[in-house]
Amino acid sequence: MTSYRDAGVNLDGALEHVSAIAGDVTSTWSNKVVGSFGGFAAGVAVPDGFTNPILMMSTDGVGTKLELARRSGIWEGVGADLVAMCVDDLAAVGALPLGFVDYMAVGELSPERDSAVVRSIAHACSVAGCPLLGGETAEHPGVMEPEAIDLAGAAMGVVEQDKALDPSDATEGNLIVGLSSPNLRSNGFSLVRRVLGEDIDLHIEELLSPSVIYSPSVLRAVSTGGVRSAAHITGGGIVENLERALPHHLGAEVDTSSWSRPSVFGVVTERGVTEEDMFRTFNMGLGFCLVIDASSLDDVLEATSEHAPAVVGRVTSESGVVLI
Amino acid sequence: MTSYRDAGVNLDGALEHVSAIAGDVTSTWSNKVVGSFGGFAAGVAVPDGFTNPILMMSTDGVGTKLELARRSGIWEGVGADLVAMCVDDLAAVGALPLGFVDYMAVGELSPERDSAVVRSIAHACSVAGCPLLGGETAEHPGVMEPEAIDLAGAAMGVVEQDKALDPSDATEGNLIVGLSSPNLRSNGFSLVRRVLGEDIDLHIEELLSPSVIYSPSVLRAVSTGGVRSAAHITGGGIVENLERALPHHLGAEVDTSSWSRPSVFGVVTERGVTEEDMFRTFNMGLGFCLVIDASSLDDVLEATSEHAPAVVGRVTSESGVVLI
Repeated sequence: MTSYRDAGVNLDGALEHVSAIAGDVTSTWSNKVVGSFGGFAAGVAVPDGFTNPILMMSTDGVGTKLELARRSGIWEGVGADLVAMCVDDLAAVGALPLGFVDYMAVGELSPERDSAVVRSIAHACSVAGCPLLGGETAEHPGVMEPEAIDLAGAAMGVVEQDKALDPSDATEGNLIVGLSSPNLRSNGFSLVRRVLGEDIDLHIEELLSPSVIYSPSVLRAVSTGGVRSAAHITGGGIVENLERALPHHLGAEVDTSSWSRPSVFGVVTERGVTEEDMFRTFNMGLGFCLVIDASSLDDVLEATSEHAPAVVGRVTSESGVVLI
Repeated sequence: MTSYRDAGVNLDGALEHVSAIAGDVTSTWSNKVVGSFGGFAAGVAVPDGFTNPILMMSTDGVGTKLELARRSGIWEGVGADLVAMCVDDLAAVGALPLGFVDYMAVGELSPERDSAVVRSIAHACSVAGCPLLGGETAEHPGVMEPEAIDLAGAAMGVVEQDKALDPSDATEGNLIVGLSSPNLRSNGFSLVRRVLGEDIDLHIEELLSPSVIYSPSVLRAVSTGGVRSAAHITGGGIVENLERALPHHLGAEVDTSSWSRPSVFGVVTERGVTEEDMFRTFNMGLGFCLVIDASSLDDVLEATSEHAPAVVGRVTSESGVVLI
């Protein structure tokens, strides 16, 4: 007789995992969450104050930064990475995050690791101000190595229709305000792993430092009314992502001397990665860019003050983003 | 000099992938979608007719059914599996799907496979009546084998607050209407792979047959007003999932002779899996259960007629679901 347990799927372990995480998950639930933990789906009402609410979605993973977490057993920051990747994409269209769900695929359940990961996601959801409405932990015996793990998430958010940030609202002369990132966020880790090889262990805590969650500051800036469009700087770096925040006929000049580059990028550069590839792969110290009316500068700087905001460039009449 | 390409991440390939899928993704977009393909997030308005809309979320993967798709190169059904797992969880709370996002993790991009997968997801989104609002394809060189692939998704939906299906609304004497599933949906494949071994190739097309998407029929049934609660039958089978649709103090009797069991389950049973494990692991031919007022039976049967609906049991005053 063959049972599911023999086939490598641990149903009892799955039930224990669900019990272990229940408190962390529901700690992110305000009394406004509809549904119960263990139900088929949970949700929230549209917040007050929206006349024509648009419901937005985003999804992302944390890439192979997770391999560094696995290698070191440091899971505390992966939730911030996962939640930041999703809710900061929502922030780039001006949307307030309303809910988050996570998906974890593993070769074999590992109670301590799995609860640490969910606890970390729940904590990050609290920072972002949205409930962790659901999740899936999937055991893939025989397909993934027993210790293998992957992580993805999705966020939904809401924005008032006429306030959604739109690249077509950017105009020549708008300023670009950059928000600082002290680390790599969750991009470029395959390159980091390649160039550092075994030396990665020398830098692993620095490399694993969790992503900043910009959403609360960005939404404060958006509420000033001066933000035209925005870019979350992920894979593709400043150039490709800032281009996504501009209409095709406009471009931008970005002065790379206008902010200081965190030392962690030097760890990669000194291994022989070109400046061009560095900028195409990493955020290089700017995790988020706001395209703003020059007249709103003071308000935007105040709203985002916790992220060392600085004017890093301006919108130009020539298509394409140029680093100067 | 080391570039990201040398590190196994194919940025040009990623851009080609994005171009290849653009048409399929946007084919699911009505003119109501806000945002543009390639933007940071896209969304939709709350549909007309909701006074107190509750926004629900669900997430799931397709488990190791994907390994059978990989083994056979048959990708056409995986989208239905992924979308069904998510939108039918929403249907179990009565929520109309408004948007979907997918996450695909691969060892190495494979243009033909990757576009086939996204095309399949887009097609399933159209069947479910919701736009594919975003997605992520993540290359994990060195962490996943080059040919490895995993798939997850998330859906958001909306339900009018006082119409959300709630287990506490089920009462003794309610009927249980089962909707037929011709196949395993996307659960139990680790057990299938274990018991069949290399013989799996003899049955692979039958095993890969795509999951039914119940959401449109279920929502039609819900709109009759006679549905009290509902269960999407996934991992844990009829017993565990139907228990999620009932208050703790009530239970149900389900007559397993009241529907016919599709032949595909016999392929597993004859390898020596016990009846108990079969029912704990598979849907056994019932993919969805509706808990209804007896007076609404005719309306519910008509609304769900395409899924061979049948009364399979009733709600009892004894806690727990019993198969008779």
